[in-house]
Amino acid sequence: MKSNPESLGVFEYNAGQEMLLRVKHDAELVQSILELVTRKGIEAATFTAIGALKRARLGYYDQKNHKYKEIAIESPHELVSCTGNISLSDGKPFVHAHVVLADERGNTRAGHLLEGTVFAAEVHLRRLEGPRLERKLDAVTGLWLWDT
Amino acid sequence: MKSNPESLGVFEYNAGQEMLLRVKHDAELVQSILELVTRKGIEAATFTAIGALKRARLGYYDQKNHKYKEIAIESPHELVSCTGNISLSDGKPFVHAHVVLADERGNTRAGHLLEGTVFAAEVHLRRLEGPRLERKLDAVTGLWLWDT
Amino acid sequence: MKSNPESLGVFEYNAGQEMLLRVKHDAELVQSILELVTRKGIEAATFTAIGALKRARLGYYDQKNHKYKEIAIESPHELVSCTGNISLSDGKPFVHAHVVLADERGNTRAGHLLEGTVFAAEVHLRRLEGPRLERKLDAVTGLWLWDT
Repeated sequence: MKSNPESLGVFEYNAGQEMLLRVKHDAELVQSILELVTRKGIEAATFTAIGALKRARLGYYDQKNHKYKEIAIESPHELVSCTGNISLSDGKPFVHAHVVLADERGNTRAGHLLEGTVFAAEVHLRRLEGPRLERKLDAVTGLWLWDT
Repeated sequence: MKSNPESLGVFEYNAGQEMLLRVKHDAELVQSILELVTRKGIEAATFTAIGALKRARLGYYDQKNHKYKEIAIESPHELVSCTGNISLSDGKPFVHAHVVLADERGNTRAGHLLEGTVFAAEVHLRRLEGPRLERKLDAVTGLWLWDT
Repeated sequence: MKSNPESLGVFEYNAGQEMLLRVKHDAELVQSILELVTRKGIEAATFTAIGALKRARLGYYDQKNHKYKEIAIESPHELVSCTGNISLSDGKPFVHAHVVLADERGNTRAGHLLEGTVFAAEVHLRRLEGPRLERKLDAVTGLWLWDT
């Protein structure tokens, strides 16, 4: 399900600070964004995306038990919202994204994006130049949060 | 349902690279964004919006039959998310936007935005300067996607 | 429920034009964003956020009666989308934000964000430099809209 870097459709704007990415059909969305930032040497960024997914796995974080529950979306949905950021985890770029999906009646399912198989997707990514931002395990929430 | 260009409430920021737009009451949202970019000579951009719509028509793309199904939203809803971009189709600026709407109980409907009648809406648009980005018909999906 | 300014986890990028904010556990989201912009002297901005909330109060604006209805969300939800802007109201920074929340099955509730108690949240804020943007009461909608 890996997309092929050579065929990533990347368009650079505003002196390389921003990119539009046409994600390949059948590629996995999180992996495609990770490949883009790895290839471009980007360690901090924010992004949005719209399009359509063939299927997806979403996550809901159980705030009491500190575990993700998985939500399987096995049918085609519009990708109506995707908001995310890039920071570092174990020194490597890490993708954190949340999505809203919609079915043929406009009904929605949403959550943390674990995996999404792309039918078509348009990503806007904005590079952030500045301090290294590392995720560290946070004892209170059990999540890997930005190290303050 | 066309908004009047003279009364578009546009505020420019960061040396004209970004704009905030107060969309006119009763204007159509897609058309209002199209008028803004046409007037400013913008060929590539990304945008978000929040506000409230009186009614809307959403689309769901049938990934098998390659046709849009229309979803009619006939009652007032909050515009809780709108993510979109501007690129070229047939050489002219084209608006691609997805939205999430919410009713009085907080329940949602979402999809590709075909048309929305504005009660009140605040758009943030960011100009992208760089390569021309043209949509071309993609045989695999039946969609007009960025030409890579 | 106020967050403590000293412990706000703010990271500045692109020469201070953009910020990433790790909102404190148990802080209130709207107030945390307001504290950030007040401390940084920001009068116009746009922002997004993702994360998780312990509880929230959402609003739906009744377009006929010109009143907000409140929607109480008493259980933990993913914060799957948050889109907002900063402008001035009575000369002071004002936060306008809309959110989509998701429960453990991926079902959503959404609306105008009145208040949200943060489990964990990551905010991306982008400063807009340019004209002062003041909200004024709009007679047609009953809302405080950007004064054109």
